Amino acid sequence: MNSAPEISRLSLNQITTNNWSLKEAVEGCVRAGLEWIGIWRHKIEPLEESVRIVKDSGLGVSGLCRGGMFPAATAEERRRRIEDNLHAIDEAAALGTDVLVLVNGPAPDRDITGARSMVADGIASIIPHARERGVKLAIEPLHPMFAAERSVICTLREANRLAERLGSPDVGIIVDVYHVWWDADLYEEVEKASGRILGFHVSDWIVPTPDLLMGRGMMGDGVIEIRKIRQAVERAGYRGPIEVEIFNQEIWDAPGDEVLARMKDAYLAHV
Amino acid sequence: MNSAPEISRLSLNQITTNNWSLKEAVEGCVRAGLEWIGIWRHKIEPLEESVRIVKDSGLGVSGLCRGGMFPAATAEERRRRIEDNLHAIDEAAALGTDVLVLVNGPAPDRDITGARSMVADGIASIIPHARERGVKLAIEPLHPMFAAERSVICTLREANRLAERLGSPDVGIIVDVYHVWWDADLYEEVEKASGRILGFHVSDWIVPTPDLLMGRGMMGDGVIEIRKIRQAVERAGYRGPIEVEIFNQEIWDAPGDEVLARMKDAYLAHV
Repeated sequence: MNSAPEISRLSLNQITTNNWSLKEAVEGCVRAGLEWIGIWRHKIEPLEESVRIVKDSGLGVSGLCRGGMFPAATAEERRRRIEDNLHAIDEAAALGTDVLVLVNGPAPDRDITGARSMVADGIASIIPHARERGVKLAIEPLHPMFAAERSVICTLREANRLAERLGSPDVGIIVDVYHVWWDADLYEEVEKASGRILGFHVSDWIVPTPDLLMGRGMMGDGVIEIRKIRQAVERAGYRGPIEVEIFNQEIWDAPGDEVLARMKDAYLAHV
Repeated sequence: MNSAPEISRLSLNQITTNNWSLKEAVEGCVRAGLEWIGIWRHKIEPLEESVRIVKDSGLGVSGLCRGGMFPAATAEERRRRIEDNLHAIDEAAALGTDVLVLVNGPAPDRDITGARSMVADGIASIIPHARERGVKLAIEPLHPMFAAERSVICTLREANRLAERLGSPDVGIIVDVYHVWWDADLYEEVEKASGRILGFHVSDWIVPTPDLLMGRGMMGDGVIEIRKIRQAVERAGYRGPIEVEIFNQEIWDAPGDEVLARMKDAYLAHV
């Protein structure tokens, strides 16, 4: 029960090696013997070439980051964002992943409740296209410190409620330890998420926290009970890839191959 | 329904004018025509003189910050912290306030669940002394971004559950908009807190957030729906003082009288 997860489940979320292009990240994963990569949309232009690079590598794609950002001040802008999400679904399908991660966006004004309705409406409107393309929509609750700038969906409890309300087999959630570790309802909500967990992301919460966005640490360098959370996620039925997603300038500045080596060790020791 | 609260409820939490001594803050409040002040323990030495300054001023004391910090690695250290809390209760009573704010502390290790039990045990053990001295214990849930360094109690939901579990009329909660504004369960939990709200603190969440600790703004400068939350708190029965509590170097560096003038205007316009 206290053993490491299979190394075959380890996935590099490519933001962890942000200085690498997609091609470099794919080659780095292959060199390191990884079987999965998580891809960011701002790294995939031109798409056809990226698709070829990924397919040729034999790597699986654990998810595409990110759709979402639904709330906006005007109907026209909300419509534009829906279109962008439809495009993201197509990109996910082209890259061969069935998981589109949704970072749902902040409120355009002070009305956070209204923004949450815009998120629900936005996701509802893209479900048919996602189903058609075989892509699942993964609601990722972000840490509440991102509520004003990145996501009005802040907890697993809220993400579960939203998924239940949408009531679609094409909608699930992402559990990222960095965003949810502090939550007294964490284990109850992970259990409630049984059957709809589409991804598990790991990193660590460093003390003291150097920065809101860029302050994530390598697993084991902080205070998160990562293994305990991973085991809860497995009890809830998730056995898919585990993405390492770290925003940290020091890690970004380190040579990618070294980061992947550290990441493998930390995964085996702490995830 | 959309009107400002009575100016007679406005209280200066003295951290907002952190460069002022207690004497300067009390005199500043009197000059500004305020009727309340919220006091910090690191500002009250020597206690007898502070008690005299406050009593002579005629100001009411809306609360004393802070007790808490219960979790610790050893039984000896936990015992020492209980003693410090008993001392804080005495100080609150001496200063003439019936509210001791509890910032409950982080885990001494990675076990956040265990730390939460230490908090419950800690509060339970100081209730008899608080009752004897006529001081109520006010659990303040802090924003989840402080979970690793200041408080394992991160939400109103958790604070309400803890208060219910303790089941004492001497234990209540503080609602601070900065810590709880993002929460989808906010209004439900404020309603559940009916009868046990012991304080209401205001400031604002600035975008972009400049700093985890020192990034609070003046009311109206950020995205929090302060008035809506204040009205919910009133529906839940709280009609006591409203403390302005701002950690922000720029505000700390401004002349105190100017800060109080800005604070009064912002209170009338946005609280």
